[in-house]
Amino acid sequence: MTKAIVLLSGGLDSATALAIAQSEGYACYTLSFHYGQRHASELVAAERVARAAAVEEHRVFPLELSVFGGSALTDPALAVPERQSKGIPSTYVPARNTVFLSIALAWAEVLNVQDIFIGVNAVDYSGYPDCRPQFIQAFEAMANLATKAALEGQELHIHAPLIALSKAQIINIGAELGVDYSLTVSCYQANEQGAACGVCDSCRLRAQGFRDAAIEDPTFYIERG
Amino acid sequence: MTKAIVLLSGGLDSATALAIAQSEGYACYTLSFHYGQRHASELVAAERVARAAAVEEHRVFPLELSVFGGSALTDPALAVPERQSKGIPSTYVPARNTVFLSIALAWAEVLNVQDIFIGVNAVDYSGYPDCRPQFIQAFEAMANLATKAALEGQELHIHAPLIALSKAQIINIGAELGVDYSLTVSCYQANEQGAACGVCDSCRLRAQGFRDAAIEDPTFYIERG
Repeated sequence: MTKAIVLLSGGLDSATALAIAQSEGYACYTLSFHYGQRHASELVAAERVARAAAVEEHRVFPLELSVFGGSALTDPALAVPERQSKGIPSTYVPARNTVFLSIALAWAEVLNVQDIFIGVNAVDYSGYPDCRPQFIQAFEAMANLATKAALEGQELHIHAPLIALSKAQIINIGAELGVDYSLTVSCYQANEQGAACGVCDSCRLRAQGFRDAAIEDPTFYIERG
Repeated sequence: MTKAIVLLSGGLDSATALAIAQSEGYACYTLSFHYGQRHASELVAAERVARAAAVEEHRVFPLELSVFGGSALTDPALAVPERQSKGIPSTYVPARNTVFLSIALAWAEVLNVQDIFIGVNAVDYSGYPDCRPQFIQAFEAMANLATKAALEGQELHIHAPLIALSKAQIINIGAELGVDYSLTVSCYQANEQGAACGVCDSCRLRAQGFRDAAIEDPTFYIERG
């Protein structure tokens, strides 16, 4: 079996990307990052998803991106917005996907892996620069000059199988592949038990996705008084 | 003054790259990585160099690349070679410059900086894939699609002012700019006091550089019985 590394956040998208990679026959190594995110419960979710999918190996890489500040996802001084903003959201983490893919590339070199999966998608790339198709292509081109494997003629591929899909399409594909979305956490400010706020951008997109996909939303929401 | 980020390893090359950036008028923010390297004394050297150059800010970013293994520089199970090997040396750290530049890019976004300096050079790129000019260009192209600043039309530049230079040329330029090379440590296995082994690839290249530059070698070597 060909090995692949799959970036796994604990959310709905990356759980689906993992299911797609496995359905294509890859033996999957999953990689999560502890990068100072507020919603550390997503790391618990990522582990749950990795275990349910019986991956070869799951790693959590500690990455103190929060020391640089600049994002509502890692900086306690900035509020998580409760409605969709125009332009780049304050939940954007500087150069996040560049850093995540770079570290995946380092692990890929050691494992002798030529395939990396990332769950970016059309909904993301309307707001986040590092979720656009042209970014993924440029990263792949760079990676193919960066490594020992590249020098030896092996070609590295960055797979972004969700990149053109809507949230509803992602959910439909994942449901067909048997992904258990109750294991995933998408909320930007989930509580310690992984219950979702229901009001942040990410919660709204997810809930709308289940409605559009006509699939029951298994999300566990924080009870409000 | 225009700000720049300079990757600073504590070695001769990056100390020279910093001096060049300052001579070009940049206000410099220096970035070192604690990435599980055996020669942690290089971090002490980096701090010394940053202080001597009176940089705006110096940061040490913890990065546990060593958990992936695969390099003699971070894996205690692999020996540091005592003579120049053909092909890619075992001291190559997987995807190191990709990861370093990516994290510099994250800091650059937060600081609103469009210039990053890295001290890679011709001697390195004969062995390390991620020191080649085409890699630097590809990284720059990728970075210009990756960030919020890029979306807003600001152009990021990766400066590699030493890329075509020999070790002797680097030393001559640095000496002219007043770099105190006694503050730097190049050895792959320097001791805790920063004394160099004198036998690893990096020590040999450095010593030869001073000979070729006809400049007295200020390196502090480990005394051998």
